[in-house]
Amino acid sequence: MASTREEGSDELRDVALLPEPPRGPLWAARARASFPWRELALFWEGNDTLRFKKTVFSALENDPLFAPGAAPSVEKYQEVTFLRCKRVFEYDFLPLEDALQRPERVMSLIQCLSAYDLSLAATFSLHLLTFGSMIYTSGSERHLKYIPEILSAEIFGCFALTELSHGSNTKAIRTTAHYDPATEEFIIHSPDFEAAKFWVGNMSKLATHAVVFAQLYTPADQGHGIHAFVVQIRDPKTLLPMPGVTVGDVGRKLGQNGLGNGFAMFHQVRIPRQDLLNRMGDVTPEGTYVANFKDVRQRFGQSLGSLSSGRVFIMAMTTVNLKLAVSIALRFSATRRQFGPAGGEEVPVLEYQMQQCRLLPYLAATWALDHFSRSLFLALQELQQGLLRNDWNRQAELGREIHALSSAGKSLASWTAQRGIQECREACGGHGYLAVNRLGSLRDDNDPNCTYEGDNNVLLQQTSNYLLGLWARRRQGGGRIESPLKTVDFLDACADTLGQRFAVCSPEDCLDSSVALAAYEWLVCYLLQESHQKFNQEKQSGNSDFEARNNCQVYYCRSLALAFLELAVVRRFHEFSHQPRVPPPLQAVLRRLSALYALWSLNQHTALLYRAEGRFRRPGGRDRPPR
Amino acid sequence: MASTREEGSDELRDVALLPEPPRGPLWAARARASFPWRELALFWEGNDTLRFKKTVFSALENDPLFAPGAAPSVEKYQEVTFLRCKRVFEYDFLPLEDALQRPERVMSLIQCLSAYDLSLAATFSLHLLTFGSMIYTSGSERHLKYIPEILSAEIFGCFALTELSHGSNTKAIRTTAHYDPATEEFIIHSPDFEAAKFWVGNMSKLATHAVVFAQLYTPADQGHGIHAFVVQIRDPKTLLPMPGVTVGDVGRKLGQNGLGNGFAMFHQVRIPRQDLLNRMGDVTPEGTYVANFKDVRQRFGQSLGSLSSGRVFIMAMTTVNLKLAVSIALRFSATRRQFGPAGGEEVPVLEYQMQQCRLLPYLAATWALDHFSRSLFLALQELQQGLLRNDWNRQAELGREIHALSSAGKSLASWTAQRGIQECREACGGHGYLAVNRLGSLRDDNDPNCTYEGDNNVLLQQTSNYLLGLWARRRQGGGRIESPLKTVDFLDACADTLGQRFAVCSPEDCLDSSVALAAYEWLVCYLLQESHQKFNQEKQSGNSDFEARNNCQVYYCRSLALAFLELAVVRRFHEFSHQPRVPPPLQAVLRRLSALYALWSLNQHTALLYRAEGRFRRPGGRDRPPR
Repeated sequence: MASTREEGSDELRDVALLPEPPRGPLWAARARASFPWRELALFWEGNDTLRFKKTVFSALENDPLFAPGAAPSVEKYQEVTFLRCKRVFEYDFLPLEDALQRPERVMSLIQCLSAYDLSLAATFSLHLLTFGSMIYTSGSERHLKYIPEILSAEIFGCFALTELSHGSNTKAIRTTAHYDPATEEFIIHSPDFEAAKFWVGNMSKLATHAVVFAQLYTPADQGHGIHAFVVQIRDPKTLLPMPGVTVGDVGRKLGQNGLGNGFAMFHQVRIPRQDLLNRMGDVTPEGTYVANFKDVRQRFGQSLGSLSSGRVFIMAMTTVNLKLAVSIALRFSATRRQFGPAGGEEVPVLEYQMQQCRLLPYLAATWALDHFSRSLFLALQELQQGLLRNDWNRQAELGREIHALSSAGKSLASWTAQRGIQECREACGGHGYLAVNRLGSLRDDNDPNCTYEGDNNVLLQQTSNYLLGLWARRRQGGGRIESPLKTVDFLDACADTLGQRFAVCSPEDCLDSSVALAAYEWLVCYLLQESHQKFNQEKQSGNSDFEARNNCQVYYCRSLALAFLELAVVRRFHEFSHQPRVPPPLQAVLRRLSALYALWSLNQHTALLYRAEGRFRRPGGRDRPPR
Repeated sequence: MASTREEGSDELRDVALLPEPPRGPLWAARARASFPWRELALFWEGNDTLRFKKTVFSALENDPLFAPGAAPSVEKYQEVTFLRCKRVFEYDFLPLEDALQRPERVMSLIQCLSAYDLSLAATFSLHLLTFGSMIYTSGSERHLKYIPEILSAEIFGCFALTELSHGSNTKAIRTTAHYDPATEEFIIHSPDFEAAKFWVGNMSKLATHAVVFAQLYTPADQGHGIHAFVVQIRDPKTLLPMPGVTVGDVGRKLGQNGLGNGFAMFHQVRIPRQDLLNRMGDVTPEGTYVANFKDVRQRFGQSLGSLSSGRVFIMAMTTVNLKLAVSIALRFSATRRQFGPAGGEEVPVLEYQMQQCRLLPYLAATWALDHFSRSLFLALQELQQGLLRNDWNRQAELGREIHALSSAGKSLASWTAQRGIQECREACGGHGYLAVNRLGSLRDDNDPNCTYEGDNNVLLQQTSNYLLGLWARRRQGGGRIESPLKTVDFLDACADTLGQRFAVCSPEDCLDSSVALAAYEWLVCYLLQESHQKFNQEKQSGNSDFEARNNCQVYYCRSLALAFLELAVVRRFHEFSHQPRVPPPLQAVLRRLSALYALWSLNQHTALLYRAEGRFRRPGGRDRPPR
């Protein structure tokens, strides 16, 4: 993906970078590979990324602080994770200029930390990429003072948005920030325990600072909606809470217990006026609110826009989990023998059709999702560069598209990983159930990916709303449907697409992902029309927008969002595996992976394809034109 | 199910047995119930069972040994689970005469212990129902001496079948038992570490005795296949291993860490001749083997027949897990409010279509699977009573049917629970991810149900083999297809069934489970024919039986086994909810649950129904008669 063909070829003899795996029970299976594995690794990652990852892994492997050990208590685990996080900053894998010039290295570092331990990756990225980026992108000059302290981990940060009673519906959070012109301070306050900040990663015992989201009030006016503030919550020397701050740990979780999720209540906590992150709106010393945007809803959307970044990183992290699980399960399956022909030797379980059918689609999914999350990450870089230039108009469409892709993308990737890891664990039988074999901790650590940074089912609505919005605008004469990343452009030909019939002569014809791709385009067009129609029916029967939307989720909007995202992933991987610069020895294997992922995903929708086909077929056997 | 209408009515005013739940946030949702909940509880469980369960729960609630506390270390957890298990025996909830006369109380007790902690239920049932029952049913007079010691927990037992390298393929275990006529002893021996007994529940630190499965050899002959032996592995006073026994813990697992799974190697361990469990075959003092059966394979089948019992108990235990998870998630959803109409109050999340669609089918599944596992348990009682009377012929067919039902039944129930608990955890968002809310431990404790006592995918082959065997026999002129529990009798009308077309006018017509039931019969007939044909094709292309069977699993035999079991569950629950003695106020709710479970299950097979329908439809629109 990142390297060129020439770069890769030079490296093929670099055995130090990609040494031969040790001879052992896996040798027989590896010897049967149909492709040169070093060339694939180099083509996929690129020389620079491979070297960078090797640097990181080598450092961790040789550092006793990262040596594996017995499962620690939750307290110890949080403590050692924090120490490891600090150590990662000390290694300075990613000097600021590198991070800005080669942002793909940020992604690589997170992938390495995730492969080591998701708790560490979460701790590190919540501090640097959520807390740090929020200050960098939503603040202004006056907040740059925090950046060196963040990069040196002198201060340790967290991102305090959700509250005990408001997780998904973050617009309804109830923490307040009243401005007091007398002292030029904001007063941060939690009205009651249900408004306590809750689930905040890093907050439990060690964070010194939080970006706190609160409803902003100035003396003269109504509220101005949600804004973000930098609030010091602990003394960096003693780690004692600051006056008025009640802060602690939310308790043991199903996974990621190395990450300290905390709660906090604020009792009239005063912070300087300057600690409002003021990119979207500011308050003058006298207490006048000055908006950089006209519309409060647009402002809120922008404020949460940076959450796309979190979701893209989650896609990458969850894909690492799946990659690890699939590797463990495939290696076990290639060496574990069980049953065999009468009188013969027992057979490696990987040779069974059933085991292949259980595991290989998840292998293909790993490649497809890895590619998709990296390409979305690059798009996000473009978005963020544009936002820093205050280039709102050019970037607004891109922001909306990335929001839609990252919302359903995080859902699809985390669910695929969750189901895949469970399948891997079961496919390894009892040995998969033993903690030491890691499938359990991978599954448990992956689990929150399905509900945090937006519950998957709620996020899918963001994506379907985006698509329905495009469709409605076009039907009202809004011109072509198109988007910066071109993921929705095919919808413009919806009527033509729906008129096409599936015409494949043999199963072999389906072994190129272009076939599944065409079926997916048809399917998404169909679901979009159906969802649009269902919503209108609900409205016509007297339901409010709120009710109508809720009643369209099952079978309609939810399926639409998932199918759309699957299509986007299938398309990207199809294009990648069919580009001319794929080295010839790798073409076959990449195209097989692409076809397998596409067909396996599409297979979930077979009933819908049959049903839809029936709807378009006239009783006399002639096709009915689409509406 | 167990009580009569009259019995129930008398008890309706017995508030002590079923006291009013406390007033609280759930009150509003409870007040909207469409049926009298006390009457449903009494009708479902019966007065006797309700009282028995209340006795057990009250004892545990009032005993400090069972008080909830912080998560203990694995070592402490195993220790306290063993103490609790002993305490349960001390309470003597189930005197031997009760257990024999009212076997449903055994099931009730296991359900209560499962609801408290699955590790305790597993520890208790492995000792009493697996180890104890094995000695009782596979031994003879000379083994009765163990029974009082088992019931008083003076000795503590385990069931040592699987080995490190043989989990699913238990026929290939390699532990040996050579008979030595000189001392009238068997020499139990593990040839190497891959033949170590592994995963044995209760063995790790506390079991004093094991039923050990080993290949039996007498001096004069070839081996006689697998037999079971009672082997003392530890001194009951000191818990030190007996000479020649190496025994220990397998290590931390994903769940059920209160249960001590162990390993053992035997180094020429000598045991008295009498400790062979000799119901199926014995060795004379001189060393002559005397079979009670003619055929070694039949003997092995019989020896493993008692595993049906384990699977039926797992069905009950896994259903308890699902019941707990669904209760937690539904109660949370009825009180958790999130989002709402513009300007209005936030809405309980249970009111959302999506949340209902995620959770209510699992509620229905809980009822359907609970009913099915109890009815299978009663059939098993009949089987075991017959076996004790050496009534082989009459019981052989029943045994095969129960084997088929419990194999796919354990698979279906454990997977339904595993997926259901995961859905419940996600449906509760972050709060479902907090360990204190128990959904994580329910899922983790449930997890091994999918792979132990037979890996689910391997077990499904037992069921499909049973069905294919019946079908092949009939095609070879073997007469009617019928079975003692009548679960396969519909296959006899396969040709007629496949000739029927689905003819329902409106969605409302589907709201009785009879509609899904008819579709299921069609589906199972179709899958049976397809699987049979696929197997023959594989054979005709030159594959061995072993290869042919393996190549029929995906899309054919696996689907067949699952659909057959779903049909059996749907049929039982349909019959139960439509019987005349259902009290009128309960009819509607039970029938709705029955229809919901049936339609939801059938919905997984929609693509197959469409596809099959296409195959049977002639181009001209006229139906093609089934082959």
